[in-house]
Amino acid sequence: MTTVAEYVIDRLAELGIDCAFGVPGDFSFPFDDAIDASDRVQWIVCANELNAAYAADGYARIKGAAILSTTYGVGELSALNGVMGSKAHRLPVFHIVGSPSTRVQKKGLITHHTLGNGVYNNFAGLSASAACVVANLTPENTIAEMERVIKEAFLHSAPAYITVPMDLGLMPVMGERPEKLVTRADCQQGISIQGELDAAVSCILDKLASAKTAVALPTGFLATRGLQSLCESFLNKVNLPFATTPMDKGVLSEAHPSYLGLYAGAGSVPESLKDWVESADVVLDIGGVVFLDFNTTIWTSSIDQDRLITIGDQFVRVGQKIFTGIAMGDVLQKLVDKASFKGTPNPQLGYPESSITDSSEKFVCSSDFYPRLRSLLKPDDVLVGETGTCLLHMNKLRLPDRVGFQNQTLWGSIGWATPATLGISLANQSGRTILVTGDGAHQLTANEIGTMGRYGINPIIFVLNNGIYGVEDELSELGHVYDDLAAWQFHQLPAAMGCGKWFTARCATIEALDAAIAHADSFDGACYIEVMIPASESKPLPEQIKQSLYQTKTPT
Amino acid sequence: MTTVAEYVIDRLAELGIDCAFGVPGDFSFPFDDAIDASDRVQWIVCANELNAAYAADGYARIKGAAILSTTYGVGELSALNGVMGSKAHRLPVFHIVGSPSTRVQKKGLITHHTLGNGVYNNFAGLSASAACVVANLTPENTIAEMERVIKEAFLHSAPAYITVPMDLGLMPVMGERPEKLVTRADCQQGISIQGELDAAVSCILDKLASAKTAVALPTGFLATRGLQSLCESFLNKVNLPFATTPMDKGVLSEAHPSYLGLYAGAGSVPESLKDWVESADVVLDIGGVVFLDFNTTIWTSSIDQDRLITIGDQFVRVGQKIFTGIAMGDVLQKLVDKASFKGTPNPQLGYPESSITDSSEKFVCSSDFYPRLRSLLKPDDVLVGETGTCLLHMNKLRLPDRVGFQNQTLWGSIGWATPATLGISLANQSGRTILVTGDGAHQLTANEIGTMGRYGINPIIFVLNNGIYGVEDELSELGHVYDDLAAWQFHQLPAAMGCGKWFTARCATIEALDAAIAHADSFDGACYIEVMIPASESKPLPEQIKQSLYQTKTPT
Repeated sequence: MTTVAEYVIDRLAELGIDCAFGVPGDFSFPFDDAIDASDRVQWIVCANELNAAYAADGYARIKGAAILSTTYGVGELSALNGVMGSKAHRLPVFHIVGSPSTRVQKKGLITHHTLGNGVYNNFAGLSASAACVVANLTPENTIAEMERVIKEAFLHSAPAYITVPMDLGLMPVMGERPEKLVTRADCQQGISIQGELDAAVSCILDKLASAKTAVALPTGFLATRGLQSLCESFLNKVNLPFATTPMDKGVLSEAHPSYLGLYAGAGSVPESLKDWVESADVVLDIGGVVFLDFNTTIWTSSIDQDRLITIGDQFVRVGQKIFTGIAMGDVLQKLVDKASFKGTPNPQLGYPESSITDSSEKFVCSSDFYPRLRSLLKPDDVLVGETGTCLLHMNKLRLPDRVGFQNQTLWGSIGWATPATLGISLANQSGRTILVTGDGAHQLTANEIGTMGRYGINPIIFVLNNGIYGVEDELSELGHVYDDLAAWQFHQLPAAMGCGKWFTARCATIEALDAAIAHADSFDGACYIEVMIPASESKPLPEQIKQSLYQTKTPT
Repeated sequence: MTTVAEYVIDRLAELGIDCAFGVPGDFSFPFDDAIDASDRVQWIVCANELNAAYAADGYARIKGAAILSTTYGVGELSALNGVMGSKAHRLPVFHIVGSPSTRVQKKGLITHHTLGNGVYNNFAGLSASAACVVANLTPENTIAEMERVIKEAFLHSAPAYITVPMDLGLMPVMGERPEKLVTRADCQQGISIQGELDAAVSCILDKLASAKTAVALPTGFLATRGLQSLCESFLNKVNLPFATTPMDKGVLSEAHPSYLGLYAGAGSVPESLKDWVESADVVLDIGGVVFLDFNTTIWTSSIDQDRLITIGDQFVRVGQKIFTGIAMGDVLQKLVDKASFKGTPNPQLGYPESSITDSSEKFVCSSDFYPRLRSLLKPDDVLVGETGTCLLHMNKLRLPDRVGFQNQTLWGSIGWATPATLGISLANQSGRTILVTGDGAHQLTANEIGTMGRYGINPIIFVLNNGIYGVEDELSELGHVYDDLAAWQFHQLPAAMGCGKWFTARCATIEALDAAIAHADSFDGACYIEVMIPASESKPLPEQIKQSLYQTKTPT
């Protein structure tokens, strides 16, 4: 006999998901027990539910999907911000939540984790707001609902919310599992309307063939859809130079000869890239660039709509023409098949050197740290960048070959990166996971360090300690006391959280930093390196930029 | 010139609120700056938003209201579970959130902290679900809206959600502040319909006058309404014995001669209290007892509806009669004025002694810890109990005179108690704040320790370390691995979080515990005592109780 809860876990395991992140608790024991009993899915019990949601988000970025398990009310609401971030970043996270037994509900009894008024459906709608699909399971509908939920979550590339009352979750599932199960590949590929597809592809090819200069902007959504290598095949075939925005950084190898750099409006690297992209005859956005403030150096990018082609999710836009009902994978495949022209020139713009200088300063500055960080990176490593000033620095680093980069430029929820590193580490078995975070953001979710120790994962963690919320101190009008932080001794945290075997260091000098990095590079275990950075480095942005970002003042 | 944001902070300060809990961040800088500039409200920057919500909840329990300040999207959603807990426990928390400038919105620009689709109203509805009233401020409506919001929040005794876009938040407020401002006392008292009030009170008095035995169940809601002393006056005047449920424990002094004990169905203390209450001619519920599972030892209380009188919020119920449109304060005042009978006998049921025994066991058991905890308590102390096995033990302790007790029996969100202790400490200036938490719950929110250190508050914290989620291990069907915890070295946490001056101890023996408690009692500063408790103490509840709680299995 398979229970409803066991069926759910087993069905999700079929997608290649081998971890479930969450916090156990009533009324989710049916799911909790099913995960515990599964030999395909490992329970990763996190320090709290928001952290678990961030960890699931990180895992889904690498594996394409994740399981998040929280309890009714208190648990699911704590996770909501994290799941909403997965929605923003288009990640299929299956959020499973148990609720009070329908026997309790029918009797009109009052339980804990409610408002005390006998109402039992207050919270599902809130959790559902972060999902693209919802399933309220029963023994009768579970098998069909799971196929539907999986299909929708992959098709829309967004979280799913799956809930079942305790009594129903423990009942045997009814019916037979279908022979043909929905797969990630089926849904991600989607189905295209042939006429729209043909018209879109020939329109794109015509535009590209007649362009004297062209540039591609591949996006991180290619990774979510599993289309990175298909995209790379196309770029290679037509010899198309490419750049990425900060949000999409690392989706293709930055050691590729066609890689031009970071396109971020006025903050592009190299600087000349801005003009080159914006004057190209065709800019080919592959996946849907989000032109948000933090991705465009405060809306300083400017691409003429008539020269922009977007290969989006279920649509293609070429100037004013919109083709719909098309799968991105089909478009890329057809482009590979049909493209016959030679491509456009690579402008060879160059990229600023990231050189390690022997600084005469004893203390560590950003200009000392980031080149050293880069020198540590190896193929298959994944670098995780926390939202904050550190992300601005990391965006500018040209990554070595096949080094991945994960960030949360759009949702920008500080604290995300530490638990995301837990999830990424568990998903990324081929290389190391290296986190760079700031003290301000790290404080929000540092309790996840204990979870990393418990499950024996071995990240390399750099915590940049400047004593303030650096990015806020830049963005707010003044250097406010509220941007100061409690004076944590970060390097003492791993031991306090049970990670006694971790290598830890506090580096106040370049010499100490070099020694710690060398040790981390050769150490077979987790490393936690606190780097003291002077707060004075955090210099207010020009007033003009802030005005542009917030647009709070009367225009003059 | 006073800005909209400044007006909001100043108006809330007028209610006697002198702290604002939160995390600063765009797009809330107008509020952040207004708090910073206020000389009446202190910024308490918390480690994260959920912790801030819990801290505000704790503060509101003592001061009657609180300010919670978070940013748009990421911040407010992280806080949602905490604010929903304040709704469940009926606490007026003013949740203020800034949103992107309407100039940005009107231009159709995309910002961070959104789903990247140019939609800017996704999240207000989610936050509003935890509130009883919402205000979308503009320069024109701010003065009137603040009076309305304050009135509603106090009248319904629930959170309020106040939001303003950045540009509008920085604009000057329009109009004049009214001469007569809404006060907490006005709203809490409410206005009663005279006919209903007279009828209800005479019905109550008739019932009580003819009762041979009667008992009152005063609730924690009396504290929220500021009606504790009025209630006590009434009980004294008619010499009515009283008991409290676990959720309401500590609302009146347990040293009062009319205090009978803890009424919790089969878990009542003394045990004989259950029968005495349930056979009394009248049970007078003052404030609205919530008969939830955790308040009734799994629905084992049983009070005949015909003998129950409820003085609720805006209603009175006497048997089958319901009187509405009545303020609780008016009912109590009229009862004090009109009651003329002598009252009913006190059954003198006794209370089990809490005696400190010299245990022959070297290690610390619950039977060693809780009597020692009780011996530490002094008048004006507030004891904070975290949800978990420790709360079950604390419920049974008879508190010394004028010792307050705070718990989250209804919402039951583990992790609440540590940040709540921050808020309670800041609100409770007359005595000490003493937290007892378990290792499982403490891990969720332990990062708030650093905030306590930063602001120099001096709680006494006991962390009971048994290595497992004790209450879950009892409640779930098996002793699951998922109930095990990462092996934190709790006593090292304060130092790691910058609380170098705190007294810390790890006590594995009774001798060490006695020494630590003696030190804590005489130490002029914060104390953090980790107490090692054997996991084997956590014994599974009888199967019958679990079945009753979860009602998952087919009845036989």
